[in-house]
Amino acid sequence: MMTEQIHYAKGSEKPILPDDGKLRLYSMRFCPFAQRAHLILNAKNIPYHVININLHEKPEWYSEINPSGKVPALHLVNEPGSPFLSESLIITEYLDEKYSQNPVYPKEPVSKAMDKLWIEKFTPVIGAVVRILLGEEDSEKALNDITQTLSTFEGELKRRDTSYFGGEKPGILDYAIWPWFERLAAINSVVGDTFSLKEDTYPHLVKWRDLLLNDPAVQKHYLTPEDHSQFFESKRSGTPNFNLLVKNE
Amino acid sequence: MMTEQIHYAKGSEKPILPDDGKLRLYSMRFCPFAQRAHLILNAKNIPYHVININLHEKPEWYSEINPSGKVPALHLVNEPGSPFLSESLIITEYLDEKYSQNPVYPKEPVSKAMDKLWIEKFTPVIGAVVRILLGEEDSEKALNDITQTLSTFEGELKRRDTSYFGGEKPGILDYAIWPWFERLAAINSVVGDTFSLKEDTYPHLVKWRDLLLNDPAVQKHYLTPEDHSQFFESKRSGTPNFNLLVKNE
Repeated sequence: MMTEQIHYAKGSEKPILPDDGKLRLYSMRFCPFAQRAHLILNAKNIPYHVININLHEKPEWYSEINPSGKVPALHLVNEPGSPFLSESLIITEYLDEKYSQNPVYPKEPVSKAMDKLWIEKFTPVIGAVVRILLGEEDSEKALNDITQTLSTFEGELKRRDTSYFGGEKPGILDYAIWPWFERLAAINSVVGDTFSLKEDTYPHLVKWRDLLLNDPAVQKHYLTPEDHSQFFESKRSGTPNFNLLVKNE
Repeated sequence: MMTEQIHYAKGSEKPILPDDGKLRLYSMRFCPFAQRAHLILNAKNIPYHVININLHEKPEWYSEINPSGKVPALHLVNEPGSPFLSESLIITEYLDEKYSQNPVYPKEPVSKAMDKLWIEKFTPVIGAVVRILLGEEDSEKALNDITQTLSTFEGELKRRDTSYFGGEKPGILDYAIWPWFERLAAINSVVGDTFSLKEDTYPHLVKWRDLLLNDPAVQKHYLTPEDHSQFFESKRSGTPNFNLLVKNE
């Protein structure tokens, strides 16, 4: 486990990082989109600095880094002009093209396009998980969105007949959807015992999840269902506790 | 100019196409997202069939081709399993990777990522143009979204100091945003003389637009401001006239 780092908030000084040529990832510890960037950086063993941002009370200097105010943003200190990238899937594809080790995108254009399409098809889960965890909506409809989409993914993994969507190793589709499987495990704490990834309904996805739980790239950034529910609880209360995992604050 | 083709509607028979190995693009003549696929196919001189879909009264068989019901969808008849691709930017990137002639995406990973980010930054215009042309909203706010975004693009084209965003030839960023420049030209017919791409405010974009108007890939799918306003007028009336350009119906 990495040491958990505090989130920079409004009024904070801009951190000064060592001039060591390492990539700099602007993140938020509980953000599933930022997690995609962490997963690909981890899977490819690319060294990087992490700067966590308090998204509720953003530091003034963050708007220069990403005018949209969102995370992730990746500072490419070694590229001409040191530009910043944003948008999780633009970042992951850039990393895979720039760093050849441990490729995560399929090489064949058609397989790569199909995996991107499958990432798009996962969208209903993204919205539904957050709506449930924030307590915003009729959870029955949201649960329905989740089970319908998961059934499609169960079918696709069965069709591919491999351990991971990426084959014998996790690829971009595995890592791009993984963040919401961590959060799915936190749903029961909010809506009661109404959802779990059951082996009889989702035999392939259950095996897949257990494999990914042991994947080193996943483990490096993993949070327990309790961590996720605690964060969402603080979010529902109106004051998200970004630093809840930081020791000795 | 290509011959304009009718749009298949509810109740229509599924067309039988010649088994000639050509790609098949499911489109709609006035859809700006489908236009992106046309532009890249045209720019790369890839031969393809067009099947136009009436999006208001969809043919029953279209849900097998694209379950989301949207256009564009590209049938890859030569790939194993003959899959269908959807999502305009997934299609354009696939085409550029699969067909090496006349590349439209930058080769350098960082330039490619930045161009994708610029395409994302164009999003406010996409929403605003449609809201104005459909008469859905306070046009002042929408016009403001448009002018703010266009100023950013004016600045970026000036900074790049090239004729096109893609350099000395149009690239993906040029073609991905072009469809909305055709429609911007139709705005005055709806909200009166309140918007035009003026040379004193947007000198680089005006030159760029005039160059693109003469680009063969653009010309092959070009529609006049009058064509666009006529289509939006029919849309506002509740019955979009997809076949308004088809002769001898």
